[in-house]
Amino acid sequence: MHPDGMNPKLSDISLPSRLAAEGEGIGMEELALAARNHGLPLEALRHDVTPPGLHYLLTHYDIPHVDPGMWSLRVGGLVGTPLALTLDELKAMPSRTVRVTMECAGNGRAALVPRPVSQPWLVEAVGTAEWTGVPLRDVLERAKPGEDGVDVVFTGADHGIERGVEQDYRRGLPLAETRGEDVLLAYAMNGADLPPQHGFPLRLIVPGWYGMASVKWLCDLEVTGSAFTGFQNAVAYRVRHGEDEDGEPVSWMAPRALLIPPGFPDFLSRHRIVRPGTVELAGRAWSGRAPVSEVEVSADGGEHWWSATLAAETGHRWAWRRWTTTWEARPGQHELSVRAVDGSGNGQPARQAWNRRGFANNAVHRVRVTCLADQG
Amino acid sequence: MHPDGMNPKLSDISLPSRLAAEGEGIGMEELALAARNHGLPLEALRHDVTPPGLHYLLTHYDIPHVDPGMWSLRVGGLVGTPLALTLDELKAMPSRTVRVTMECAGNGRAALVPRPVSQPWLVEAVGTAEWTGVPLRDVLERAKPGEDGVDVVFTGADHGIERGVEQDYRRGLPLAETRGEDVLLAYAMNGADLPPQHGFPLRLIVPGWYGMASVKWLCDLEVTGSAFTGFQNAVAYRVRHGEDEDGEPVSWMAPRALLIPPGFPDFLSRHRIVRPGTVELAGRAWSGRAPVSEVEVSADGGEHWWSATLAAETGHRWAWRRWTTTWEARPGQHELSVRAVDGSGNGQPARQAWNRRGFANNAVHRVRVTCLADQG
Repeated sequence: MHPDGMNPKLSDISLPSRLAAEGEGIGMEELALAARNHGLPLEALRHDVTPPGLHYLLTHYDIPHVDPGMWSLRVGGLVGTPLALTLDELKAMPSRTVRVTMECAGNGRAALVPRPVSQPWLVEAVGTAEWTGVPLRDVLERAKPGEDGVDVVFTGADHGIERGVEQDYRRGLPLAETRGEDVLLAYAMNGADLPPQHGFPLRLIVPGWYGMASVKWLCDLEVTGSAFTGFQNAVAYRVRHGEDEDGEPVSWMAPRALLIPPGFPDFLSRHRIVRPGTVELAGRAWSGRAPVSEVEVSADGGEHWWSATLAAETGHRWAWRRWTTTWEARPGQHELSVRAVDGSGNGQPARQAWNRRGFANNAVHRVRVTCLADQG
Repeated sequence: MHPDGMNPKLSDISLPSRLAAEGEGIGMEELALAARNHGLPLEALRHDVTPPGLHYLLTHYDIPHVDPGMWSLRVGGLVGTPLALTLDELKAMPSRTVRVTMECAGNGRAALVPRPVSQPWLVEAVGTAEWTGVPLRDVLERAKPGEDGVDVVFTGADHGIERGVEQDYRRGLPLAETRGEDVLLAYAMNGADLPPQHGFPLRLIVPGWYGMASVKWLCDLEVTGSAFTGFQNAVAYRVRHGEDEDGEPVSWMAPRALLIPPGFPDFLSRHRIVRPGTVELAGRAWSGRAPVSEVEVSADGGEHWWSATLAAETGHRWAWRRWTTTWEARPGQHELSVRAVDGSGNGQPARQAWNRRGFANNAVHRVRVTCLADQG
């Protein structure tokens, strides 16, 4: 540490990524992230659309304060007609509402061994909301991107440092991914203005992708002639094993099924208790890659599996799908597991393949349950 | 662990409270609590009333699902006229709206040494909301409590186990504390129905007390002829030093001031960066015991203090008070601290006195800030 009067540097404060040592508990820095950010309490999987305040939340830096009267969205770069659109102008354009399940790319990270030191998610970094806004392609059409456009770079109003790099949060998305009608510039969540923490006044929504793509507090769109090589695309959100690998960019959500933990919990351990008899099991499953085609459940730690019943298709391609089944509980200790397969044949691994930053994990969800004899 | 067919017991699953060992990091059970429950991101202290979803949240067991059409509030025990009130009947009574700052009794726990193993709060377990409902005293008046009434026992619909005791969440409050017009049976938060996680359809609000008193998912009120000795009053929420002490019940919030961390953060460490020059500092201060009378700030780790400016009284006795000041930042490492004093002379300790479960902590809030030279 430098006393007053010395000249500290960014690199003294903002350190490279690291892996936890063997047996190293969650540290105070990870805890401070876990206290700010939060997951979906799993019992809230009962709701088709996650009630306000229960959707998972990850903020890289601070939630910025944006004055909507002073704000406009700039659209520039390789475009024929640069734009500056006010919120009223955006709201006057034809709107679209899309129900989207969004998951953090780091979901499951804290269960990896060794653990990448970062936001320590277990399995709960997910939520579903109805987003209303203007299709991105309609705004781009007005700006007339050049033939030579490759990426659209989205800049948010949140500012901070990450691994020594001072930055506004900024992501590039290939122009080819901006053409679907469901990719939105959203100004409403569940029928109300965006809450500050979800990107007020405007955010991007890229359905089917992990959450890092859906840039919040959006203030600038730039069409570029080459692929964006900024921090969040080239350094942060990549699946890599070694330190020096280029790795693969994180993009579409892998399939995942979650179980509403049955019975009732112990306060501290969250261990579940049920009574003997028929227990209704339910949960949700999703995949960004293709619609979920099957959900399977096991009550013996993954040795035997049976098919759960998928709820009828709702027409919401980008939202999770409800599943249900029953289980005959007998006194003893049990491990329930659930796994999804999507229409492209993508499934979930029993044990997670490790990667250096803990992205795109989708190991089978396991819930330990104790069935107590009625007089137990 | 018991294999299938054995008879496990509650006490195998739900263990006694314990303290973390020296150097023991946050464990997976504490992390699971931190991922579900969440604090107020400190930059959200800028809002007089905390926006939906940013108010701190602690759920002992699961968020229960209550069907409001099937629900009624039972009022019984030592009363002349037992009642069963529907939500519509409660909403037809004269209502009152009160702005209340609420803090979790365990706020600050994770910074204690040794650390009580439980929900691992740092300093962010607070929020302010406008609650609308019926004054509790109006409902009790209709039920006509007997002269021999001592406590009112409030039962929530959330069910679980805690340290081996299976229970609905239940708290007793002395009848003498139910007489203020601001103690509410609240059905609305910030002008909308209660969200599921904040107690839908009805919760108690006891302004000035730590949050454990404000029972959520309320379904039953019982007037008792002796002080309630259930788990949450007699075992859980007590300030005690030794295992076998009776201890003091947790009740009114101690004074606390928090600082909106200035500048911008490092993603992982949350360490703050500012540039040289005048930095505006602001935050909030509250005390359940008496109105806040002074807030002081230090920029040298607590050696020298100066008075911050308190915002004008708003007439909201139970809400936090805004404070502001400025600080001349020079390049180097700094520790900002802030502390409040209330009208009864209660202040904040520089170092926290320890207690066994980590309740009612109010040590001075400290924020480390690095001021980088402009070209740093």
